[in-house]
Amino acid sequence: MNLAILGFGNVARALARLLHKQRGAHPFRITAIHTRRGTAVEASGLPAEPAFGPPAASLDEVLDGANAQVLVELTTLNPESGEPALTHIRTALRRGLHVVTANKGPIACAYHELREEARRRNVRLLHEAVTMDGTPVSNMVRHCLPAAAVTGFAGALNSTTKVILEAMARGHSFEEGIAQARALGVAEGDPWFDIEGWDSACKAAALANVLMDARTTPAQVDRKGISRLTPEKLAEAAAKGKAIVLVSRARRTTQGVKLRVRAEVLDRDDVLASMHGTSNLLLLETDLMGQFGVFTLDPGPEQTAYGVFADLMEIARNT
Amino acid sequence: MNLAILGFGNVARALARLLHKQRGAHPFRITAIHTRRGTAVEASGLPAEPAFGPPAASLDEVLDGANAQVLVELTTLNPESGEPALTHIRTALRRGLHVVTANKGPIACAYHELREEARRRNVRLLHEAVTMDGTPVSNMVRHCLPAAAVTGFAGALNSTTKVILEAMARGHSFEEGIAQARALGVAEGDPWFDIEGWDSACKAAALANVLMDARTTPAQVDRKGISRLTPEKLAEAAAKGKAIVLVSRARRTTQGVKLRVRAEVLDRDDVLASMHGTSNLLLLETDLMGQFGVFTLDPGPEQTAYGVFADLMEIARNT
Repeated sequence: MNLAILGFGNVARALARLLHKQRGAHPFRITAIHTRRGTAVEASGLPAEPAFGPPAASLDEVLDGANAQVLVELTTLNPESGEPALTHIRTALRRGLHVVTANKGPIACAYHELREEARRRNVRLLHEAVTMDGTPVSNMVRHCLPAAAVTGFAGALNSTTKVILEAMARGHSFEEGIAQARALGVAEGDPWFDIEGWDSACKAAALANVLMDARTTPAQVDRKGISRLTPEKLAEAAAKGKAIVLVSRARRTTQGVKLRVRAEVLDRDDVLASMHGTSNLLLLETDLMGQFGVFTLDPGPEQTAYGVFADLMEIARNT
Repeated sequence: MNLAILGFGNVARALARLLHKQRGAHPFRITAIHTRRGTAVEASGLPAEPAFGPPAASLDEVLDGANAQVLVELTTLNPESGEPALTHIRTALRRGLHVVTANKGPIACAYHELREEARRRNVRLLHEAVTMDGTPVSNMVRHCLPAAAVTGFAGALNSTTKVILEAMARGHSFEEGIAQARALGVAEGDPWFDIEGWDSACKAAALANVLMDARTTPAQVDRKGISRLTPEKLAEAAAKGKAIVLVSRARRTTQGVKLRVRAEVLDRDDVLASMHGTSNLLLLETDLMGQFGVFTLDPGPEQTAYGVFADLMEIARNT
């Protein structure tokens, strides 16, 4: 099965390494890598260290040469528009390619449209790595919760804010918290995207679209970030045995799925307060299976790449 | 698809209710219920409130009349021998029936033999509800972790000891802890099975057999229970910011899979210390997906019944 990969950052490189290691048992072939800085295309398969030429003029030009069955979309996110990933995915689906993405933008902004397009073209659109760094969520619900409905969820899904709030709880300033998050590599882009709750809102919208058919967008999430919190407020909460965590919540109401992102004051032994640093956790509420959830400890690009790989394996199994 | 159910306790009753509610979309039919106290068989399907006759002389007699494709094994556990469930499952497999069990004994004691027998007969042996009350574990690993290996695990899987240890941490006596566990309905049988770590050892062996092909038994688990702990020791740990939890651990070594059950002194913010009361948690260590896990909050017989139902759905989908 031939893959065209868009973007070549940490996750894409980890995926390329994983595919190379697994090539004996699972012979996926990378036939194109396309980034803003350069493009490599070779329909018979790129070498482990591909030589990049100048960037191709369009994704269509890349795909014309790649003979790929799957587009793997791993570009950098623009969370408001979902672009350029959204256009990439539309292009690939229109051409009859399966799509695997680790990019939450399109799933948060336009999942219903993309899913319907994939159905019409009889191809798969998979996105396991979008919200939990490769931990089984979408695939787990699809495979392991037959006949059950997800009625709500609560997630501690953002690493940057966890690191900042924990730093402040130890008496550090907000700015020192940001610096610690940067040092851990979790706030690589604009940390305010995390701090203002946009990342949590994107993940909430993506999860609600996938697990609850919410047909929503990040802009529709009732969102407040952590920018008004101070070390004093964190200390006050800690003195009462409480922790403050930025939580993404969804619940089904008669008016549809309501989504909310808030810094919540939780009992320190609340499961949502049990994750630290870059670890994350999602609690699902269901009609038939009660409350259960998944969590990941200290994930990195390798885990996200594994989520993409798991989706590729699912496509390979079923085609 | 016709089901013969063995045992008719809380889980079996919850399953019967669930199957009845789902009968429109998922028409499973219960054609036999067999307990030590009575048997009801009707090949065209039992009514919602079946009339029990005297107990059948043998499982073969039950199955002769039931025309069932699946045996659902929900009898009471004898953890040392795995009986009578083990004989029930062998009988059913020999007759070419699929088997779904919520009974950890046979999976902990004889999984390899039973799995091989099921393969030879070309039937399924499924057991999702054995260790985590229906939370996706076995099915999740099988469906969602392609090409990855579980290299170890750590689980806080026993409710009775959690309740007792938490009671002692609040200053209550061991006996008061047992009474509280009984009041919560989690120590229904002999609480010493939980207190001495046998339940945790059974779950460790079952998980290791299923997830790591360990071919082990509960007797091979290096096991110590919580009977020597006191309120004083719990208070001492709490004063140091620690919690004590009975943990089931597995790790792969060059000498095979090593299993251990111990009351471990954990940092209070360790994820294994984040579960309370009847909630439970399993942390998996893997080669390709790092460390991640699943947890369930306050499960009851409905969740266990749902795990059985999920297995039935899996069999129905693939036959």
